[in-house]
Amino acid sequence: MLMDDMGWGDLGVFGNPSKETPNLDRLAQQGMTFPDFYSANPLCSPSRAALLTGRLPVRNGFYTTNAHARNAYTPQNIDGGIQDSEVLLPELLKKAGYRSKLVGKWHLGQQPQYLPLKHGFDEWFGAPNCHFGPYNDKEIPNVPMYRNDEMVGRIYEEFEINKKTGESNITQLYKLEAIDFIHKQVKADQPFFLLWAPDATHEPLFASEPFLGTSQRGLYGDAVRELDSCVGEIVDMLHEAGVMNNTLVFFSSDNGGATYAKTKGGSNGPLLCGKETTYEGGTREPTIAYWPGTINEEQVSHQLGSLMDWFSTALDLAGVEAPGDKIIDGISLSATLQKGEIKNRPIFYYRGDEMMAVRVGMYKAHYWTWTESLELFNRGTDFCPGEDIPNVTTHDQVNNTAQPLLFHLGRDPGEKYIIHPLSSEYNQAIDPIRAAVAEHLQAMKRADPQLNYCDPAVMNWAPSGCQKLNKCLPIPSHHKTLCVWDH
Amino acid sequence: MLMDDMGWGDLGVFGNPSKETPNLDRLAQQGMTFPDFYSANPLCSPSRAALLTGRLPVRNGFYTTNAHARNAYTPQNIDGGIQDSEVLLPELLKKAGYRSKLVGKWHLGQQPQYLPLKHGFDEWFGAPNCHFGPYNDKEIPNVPMYRNDEMVGRIYEEFEINKKTGESNITQLYKLEAIDFIHKQVKADQPFFLLWAPDATHEPLFASEPFLGTSQRGLYGDAVRELDSCVGEIVDMLHEAGVMNNTLVFFSSDNGGATYAKTKGGSNGPLLCGKETTYEGGTREPTIAYWPGTINEEQVSHQLGSLMDWFSTALDLAGVEAPGDKIIDGISLSATLQKGEIKNRPIFYYRGDEMMAVRVGMYKAHYWTWTESLELFNRGTDFCPGEDIPNVTTHDQVNNTAQPLLFHLGRDPGEKYIIHPLSSEYNQAIDPIRAAVAEHLQAMKRADPQLNYCDPAVMNWAPSGCQKLNKCLPIPSHHKTLCVWDH
Repeated sequence: MLMDDMGWGDLGVFGNPSKETPNLDRLAQQGMTFPDFYSANPLCSPSRAALLTGRLPVRNGFYTTNAHARNAYTPQNIDGGIQDSEVLLPELLKKAGYRSKLVGKWHLGQQPQYLPLKHGFDEWFGAPNCHFGPYNDKEIPNVPMYRNDEMVGRIYEEFEINKKTGESNITQLYKLEAIDFIHKQVKADQPFFLLWAPDATHEPLFASEPFLGTSQRGLYGDAVRELDSCVGEIVDMLHEAGVMNNTLVFFSSDNGGATYAKTKGGSNGPLLCGKETTYEGGTREPTIAYWPGTINEEQVSHQLGSLMDWFSTALDLAGVEAPGDKIIDGISLSATLQKGEIKNRPIFYYRGDEMMAVRVGMYKAHYWTWTESLELFNRGTDFCPGEDIPNVTTHDQVNNTAQPLLFHLGRDPGEKYIIHPLSSEYNQAIDPIRAAVAEHLQAMKRADPQLNYCDPAVMNWAPSGCQKLNKCLPIPSHHKTLCVWDH
Repeated sequence: MLMDDMGWGDLGVFGNPSKETPNLDRLAQQGMTFPDFYSANPLCSPSRAALLTGRLPVRNGFYTTNAHARNAYTPQNIDGGIQDSEVLLPELLKKAGYRSKLVGKWHLGQQPQYLPLKHGFDEWFGAPNCHFGPYNDKEIPNVPMYRNDEMVGRIYEEFEINKKTGESNITQLYKLEAIDFIHKQVKADQPFFLLWAPDATHEPLFASEPFLGTSQRGLYGDAVRELDSCVGEIVDMLHEAGVMNNTLVFFSSDNGGATYAKTKGGSNGPLLCGKETTYEGGTREPTIAYWPGTINEEQVSHQLGSLMDWFSTALDLAGVEAPGDKIIDGISLSATLQKGEIKNRPIFYYRGDEMMAVRVGMYKAHYWTWTESLELFNRGTDFCPGEDIPNVTTHDQVNNTAQPLLFHLGRDPGEKYIIHPLSSEYNQAIDPIRAAVAEHLQAMKRADPQLNYCDPAVMNWAPSGCQKLNKCLPIPSHHKTLCVWDH
């Protein structure tokens, strides 16, 4: 269960003052909470590509070299996408007889060759891109919703989101798809992998009518409450179907809360900044693992985890080997889940093509610091609203490689108090960090960047299935240019 | 159980990333969590005086008029203290046959007439002032520890705190005192009121040897872990003694985490600033009520609560009338605890003699804003480190009375996004706030301020009992001056 732009601090169990996520809080209490769990990237597409490949975006191609340390993703006009040379989790699980479904946002490329069913998923219900819009279908088409390999309508057309009220039943549709899929697999005694990836907490926010206006947090909180409720229903259904003891539920989010969206974005609790940044608020995720009978109740694991570990853990549990010819960044958390084991492993924080920071144990070293450009800030986009840490939150890209900024995330999860570089603590902590970085960079083989080129012709004008629905739009001529990434 | 300088975000259940408070988290899970619970003041002495009188500090005298909106407390040289005209909770509970003990910090005046046994407590083990020191007993004496009405030693002398290592067994002593007191009362079938007020999370921090170095958060976290462990032991003991179903346990803190102490202070999670301020980080407290059999499990109450409610709730449950000649600011939470009832009531945020802010429902209006003076800031004291909200965090005392700064604490618990004063939301929200303030100020009868005068002669030179121990120090001559309060 992968949320979209949900922040570390959005759940009751992670300290949200509203305490409006009773179902997720119960899963946490009856399972394992991971307070130190990271996405592989502070932005959606690279994070999702990393989850499904077990590999950092610079290895799987989900990054840009158009500019230094810039976040890129897959808007409709992106030319790139997930390459056939990458092996995705559902492709591998198929070897062990698993049937896979994606419900919700894909975001690994909207051109036909990049879609889920071309990369191992047996089923899909959802959209290839973010639900931005509505568009007038002239400059930009509305994003299609697919069932498997054909579109079944477009968002804002057949799949409504009321921009005024925020009402939409899309999360409910996603819930029903999940429940239906599970039911069918259980009935057929068929092992399954479901990636449930709803996007109601990504702007533009939405919730269905019964949830509108019910939270303390406005529309954002309404969306969180609906997602919490759906998680509860899906888990209840797994129990009722008798497969809960045989099913691992992972819950997390693709990147930090969108602090730039102010009260329309998520909360990162005490963590610094949010989405788009490599401060803790950008990449630390509210993560829960639930598997009654295998994971004990009331477990808290301080294992440094990554969404890429879902890849490795799933393979491990399914008894499938990872591709031998590729470096996999994920590690199996199987022993963590079952026995509370802790593996020492570094976490690398990337922004675009640059390794910005690294965490080893409790220490995090910022090799580069950057919030957002002064131009963007002056236009009103602030990734760190209300937060200003001298020499840490910076409008210039600052290279601290010679003397990385060091923080102790146990004493200082908000990255407020720089450890003095002349202190003995700094000297002791920096050596293992430098060693981890050297090893990491030495072994780094970068993929061709997939997020460099944009082209209006590759947008969702005429997706497969559009003829049947009479929803094909004229395709403009190709005009391939370097994409502009301003964050 | 009243903690000292512990912040809203210090417990696992309130989202601390370290998740190192399993006992308190369990109490919360098996009882009622109050995410919207406030101290009556952002500083220790006034907060404690308010708890025990059920009245705001401006009513009970625990404030200063030496300067506008300045926090004052009871250092050793304070001339004032709790007045006989105030009626304290233990005095009232005595009418219903309760025996009362204070274990830990008093802080309502160190002169003989102000001490706990003069104001209703039957027993006391602890100190009248903060455990600052060590002093050389010339300019300032070390703070005495009392058993009942006589000193039994001094902190840093008979009651050691190792300033280098942070080691001290004082919290363990406080735990044993609590357990011993409860045992005796249970044995005698004697109703009791215990105020357990340890101070290990107030600077200088300390923890006993088994806890030193065991947390992720440094010495502060070690102290939290020890307190959590002691709470667990005391509650276990109540269960074993067979009185848990007949005992209400309240847990909270006297004011927000001391953010100015940086990593040596507590965490206020996503809340703004800390101790000394009337932003949420200064006065919102991690509060839990536990009473198995009466309070259901897994309850979260968004009742706006105050430490002063402990006074009114205890009286209500004990069937004792509050003094009829006094305005009581606390309300009974009995129906909240038992039936989840929510009472609409405003929260007033005071700093010294000034009502700085008010909360009504989800809305908080700042009538005055002030962090700390520029002088103090330039000397290195920052109550809002890393946080800078234009027009909200201010070094000048800013009077917003004509147009209070308005926040919606559900959407924006961090007080980052001012609601525009020309918006319809502002206009709708401000009327009930103005009405509540008008009613409040109209009925306000201020006590003589007790925290205006300081005098070196009133320090703990020769506390009662010092002769027996040969620990009397020469008392300097009186020199009564206006105290200087710089915060």
